[in-house]
Amino acid sequence: MENTHNFLLPKTNLMGTGAIKDLPNQLLSFKLSKVLIVTDKNMISLGYVDSIERILKNLFISYDIFDGILHPNPTVSFVEDGLTYLKKGFNVFKRNYKLIISIGGGTNHDCAKAIATVGTNGGSINDYEGFNKVTKPAIPHIAINTTAGSAAELTMFAIITDQSRKVKMAVASPFLTPYISVNDPIFMTTMPKEVTASSGIDVVSHAIEAFVSTEASPITDSLALKAIRLAFEYLPRAYENGNDLEAREKMMFANTMAGMAFNNAGLGYVHCMAHQLGGFYNQTHGCYNAVLLPYVFEFNSPSIPEERIFQLCEAIGPITRNRIQAIDIIIDSIHELRSKIEIPGNLTEMGLKAGDIEPLSQNALKDISAFTNPRQGFVDDIIYLIKSAS
Amino acid sequence: MENTHNFLLPKTNLMGTGAIKDLPNQLLSFKLSKVLIVTDKNMISLGYVDSIERILKNLFISYDIFDGILHPNPTVSFVEDGLTYLKKGFNVFKRNYKLIISIGGGTNHDCAKAIATVGTNGGSINDYEGFNKVTKPAIPHIAINTTAGSAAELTMFAIITDQSRKVKMAVASPFLTPYISVNDPIFMTTMPKEVTASSGIDVVSHAIEAFVSTEASPITDSLALKAIRLAFEYLPRAYENGNDLEAREKMMFANTMAGMAFNNAGLGYVHCMAHQLGGFYNQTHGCYNAVLLPYVFEFNSPSIPEERIFQLCEAIGPITRNRIQAIDIIIDSIHELRSKIEIPGNLTEMGLKAGDIEPLSQNALKDISAFTNPRQGFVDDIIYLIKSAS
Ligand SMILES: [Fe+2]
Ligand SMILES: [Fe+2]
Repeated sequence: MENTHNFLLPKTNLMGTGAIKDLPNQLLSFKLSKVLIVTDKNMISLGYVDSIERILKNLFISYDIFDGILHPNPTVSFVEDGLTYLKKGFNVFKRNYKLIISIGGGTNHDCAKAIATVGTNGGSINDYEGFNKVTKPAIPHIAINTTAGSAAELTMFAIITDQSRKVKMAVASPFLTPYISVNDPIFMTTMPKEVTASSGIDVVSHAIEAFVSTEASPITDSLALKAIRLAFEYLPRAYENGNDLEAREKMMFANTMAGMAFNNAGLGYVHCMAHQLGGFYNQTHGCYNAVLLPYVFEFNSPSIPEERIFQLCEAIGPITRNRIQAIDIIIDSIHELRSKIEIPGNLTEMGLKAGDIEPLSQNALKDISAFTNPRQGFVDDIIYLIKSAS
Repeated sequence: MENTHNFLLPKTNLMGTGAIKDLPNQLLSFKLSKVLIVTDKNMISLGYVDSIERILKNLFISYDIFDGILHPNPTVSFVEDGLTYLKKGFNVFKRNYKLIISIGGGTNHDCAKAIATVGTNGGSINDYEGFNKVTKPAIPHIAINTTAGSAAELTMFAIITDQSRKVKMAVASPFLTPYISVNDPIFMTTMPKEVTASSGIDVVSHAIEAFVSTEASPITDSLALKAIRLAFEYLPRAYENGNDLEAREKMMFANTMAGMAFNNAGLGYVHCMAHQLGGFYNQTHGCYNAVLLPYVFEFNSPSIPEERIFQLCEAIGPITRNRIQAIDIIIDSIHELRSKIEIPGNLTEMGLKAGDIEPLSQNALKDISAFTNPRQGFVDDIIYLIKSAS
């Protein structure tokens, strides 16, 4: 009888309003070394990069900034541009980067993870698609997060789009886990409404998929349920008023807890389809999840133990001991939350073309997220689910 | 407004029945280096040390065994003996230990943390009493746990008795966090009944103290509540039948979750008194907690928000919205659990002498666990609490 549920996470996670003030202390051991900041131009204009630059300057840590992440869908080409930057440093200026700091949301962290991994392992990020293909530790990476969110700042996953194949690759390895994650809600108040919405519903998707996953453990269960509770209560508030620091803080916790849960329990069909839709149409990841989540939950429900359905329903709100009723409440509540935060209700509005459904579905079943879905289906099931959500 | 709740933990926590099989993979990067095993003679005779030796031999990792931990109360003298062993290695045989592996319960892990810390930081373990006094990383340390438990295998704390002062010192620093924790219930089935009882009630104390702590966060709350739920259900079963692997596994999860919670939220008056009682009378740590817990909970209850009292009561069993009733249920349930697992009901039976109460209470208020107790008291309060439990 074997039954292992390892728990992996960055050793240090700085969290809460003002958490950034602990960063200098953590950076002391990197004194006199060189840092590569991986970010985008928006983070620079919001002043977030500047506040990290000031910390580095005070510690006499020199740094360079790679701001070549041009849109919120991380691509192989961004990673390659970052690697060119990293290597140019190596050869011309003798810049041996000892640390990568990513500032932004999941896109920036995922690109930084890929750069850090290829930086020490060589080759191209495509070589590491799948689970546990990375063999050497990556360049140490500190992820400073500005969304709530993908939880990429604390997970072992990087999702990178290979445009040539129109596929979102998942690269998963403990070596991709950042060295330190920073989640300070002060960096989250400027998140635009639509980012609050799509990243917030991504949190809900992570928590629900981790809770019903085949790899769930008591640890991931408790974290996922609390994340669901917080997100259903505070996401509408954070969406209505981005300066509501309490709501931002609760969503920050929901994000980290959902991240801890899915980093160890895995995800499911919502994410395996959302990844592929993202590869085809380049819309925001969270919006695909929002639309798919109720249909996948209905599909999965026969394989979810009754007690779990009741617990999930209770975390969302009402208490019931009627299975059918609980499933209905869960599905309706997800639809309701999605519409409250003004995310479109179907995939057609997000650009889905009928001719793409078949290849999309084929790719989806190969995604690593598919393996931990509680009900295993065939391509026809995926096609049916995508059509239901169209 | 600042409100930070950092989350610290070993990056890698191997857990569950059969988890030990992942250890060789984790050890690969230590190949060709030397390992110091820190353990006791009982662990050797149970065959646990042998099973780790076999893993090391297969990987061509050479090792030495320090088995000088002579009783379940970690003392400065055990640490110094271990350091002598470590240094003798350094000088005579040129053994530069790259890794320490502790095998056992909290005592062995705490001694190993102290040896690993002084091994790189110099001086004596007394120099590092208190919070954040350690300045350099310790020797990397893997903790293989055989109890459920102190959670020392994953926390940043070491509790070491200074016999000359009759004081239990708390050494707390992120640098003490083990590199990897291993919690495989297969290593826990031989735990004697009294160890199952005292370490199991320690878990309950960690979870309750972390849940009502002033530093609690949504993350630590969700972990603590689940740990309480599991321990109240499965501790009596694990106590009745040590070979009940399901009960052992649930208690292993309760231990790790309570540990994750108190490592980040801190503890309270139960532990600050139990530490000092342990320093005076050398009885098992968990038994002191068991006796003190209901009295401290009653003392704290005016400072615990009503909603938290209801949540705690629900985790233990019954649902009520009456505050007085909920407090009574919690207190009675703790007494009941203690007596089910046959732990004595008062401190006098554990050797408490009236004349020691005053100095004990003075020391208790200086313990780092005191700072996060929800209701701050004076020496007279501690004296009153110890007398109540006598
Ligand atoms: Fe996601
Ligand atoms: Fe304890």
